[in-house]
Amino acid sequence: MSGDDEGDPRPRILARREVARSRLFRIEELDLRFSNGVERTYERLPATGHRAVMVVALDDAGEILLIREYMAGFHAYQLTLPKGAADPGESLEEAANRELKEEAGYGARRIELLKELSVAPGHMGFTQTVALATDLYPERLPGDEPEPLDVERWPLARIDALFQREDFSEARAIAALHLARMRLESTPG
Amino acid sequence: MSGDDEGDPRPRILARREVARSRLFRIEELDLRFSNGVERTYERLPATGHRAVMVVALDDAGEILLIREYMAGFHAYQLTLPKGAADPGESLEEAANRELKEEAGYGARRIELLKELSVAPGHMGFTQTVALATDLYPERLPGDEPEPLDVERWPLARIDALFQREDFSEARAIAALHLARMRLESTPG
Repeated sequence: MSGDDEGDPRPRILARREVARSRLFRIEELDLRFSNGVERTYERLPATGHRAVMVVALDDAGEILLIREYMAGFHAYQLTLPKGAADPGESLEEAANRELKEEAGYGARRIELLKELSVAPGHMGFTQTVALATDLYPERLPGDEPEPLDVERWPLARIDALFQREDFSEARAIAALHLARMRLESTPG
Repeated sequence: MSGDDEGDPRPRILARREVARSRLFRIEELDLRFSNGVERTYERLPATGHRAVMVVALDDAGEILLIREYMAGFHAYQLTLPKGAADPGESLEEAANRELKEEAGYGARRIELLKELSVAPGHMGFTQTVALATDLYPERLPGDEPEPLDVERWPLARIDALFQREDFSEARAIAALHLARMRLESTPG
């Protein structure tokens, strides 16, 4: 037995239906037939259509800007990177610069997109693009945060020590910082 | 204005209610009052109670085991690491070894837990613990996958090239591989 579309190894989607919905999320079921004939029903949170960015902002002293933010998933404050969704019509570079201004109080004259990261691709269609922001200058924009965010600085050269901290655990932030360091090490100057 | 609990800077949870539910997921709303008095309603997918692992398995040739798996979130096959939830009563080390046997056809005589990663802590209570598996031997256990998974090997020394591949994008896997390399470099032998 093979899939219905010759040459496409992906399972065939036999049916798709929304099974739950909230203000922010939709959950859908996919009835799938794999190329070996096995049929399964999978659940997923499909892409929302909002592209999102995570910002590694490096200042002239070689330090990156971290924010301390309330994380509802754990009802706890944690350190992470500035991030957020792009507004309609906004490029990812523009979104990165705006989020940096809102959450950390800095703008960037140079923004480079490094990689589109997936979060939990087995179950979620979300991605977040890593943006490297350099040539910073102070500028604050009002954001939609319920409270001002504490900003901390950490030397890029010592991020491996940051990764050992219990209050720094977000996989996307670890990946983003490592990718930014790789990028900077590959282009001196 | 300050929070109701002196010394606890976290917002007070005024109310919590389930707003949607599926077979796998629950979505709840939290009515929060931040310490500055601002009130907001947040949505989150709370912890499921299932602890989960992601396995970096390193063979004697210095190569790590990758799997190619169907990812429903994107309706696409992607490279990632073996992973899964612990069964009731199973330790994380046991879960890592079982998932490795089911998904990659290897067991490990040594398993070390490296770090508990969060996925999207602003909205989700999920974590996944990185397990470093070494001293491998062939052993396959039947899993619950709908089809056998292709296993690929990649030199640990060249994972930065892996991170450039478009079919390798999962933030948790990038973080896990980098943390495993850090760990191995810190303990020669």
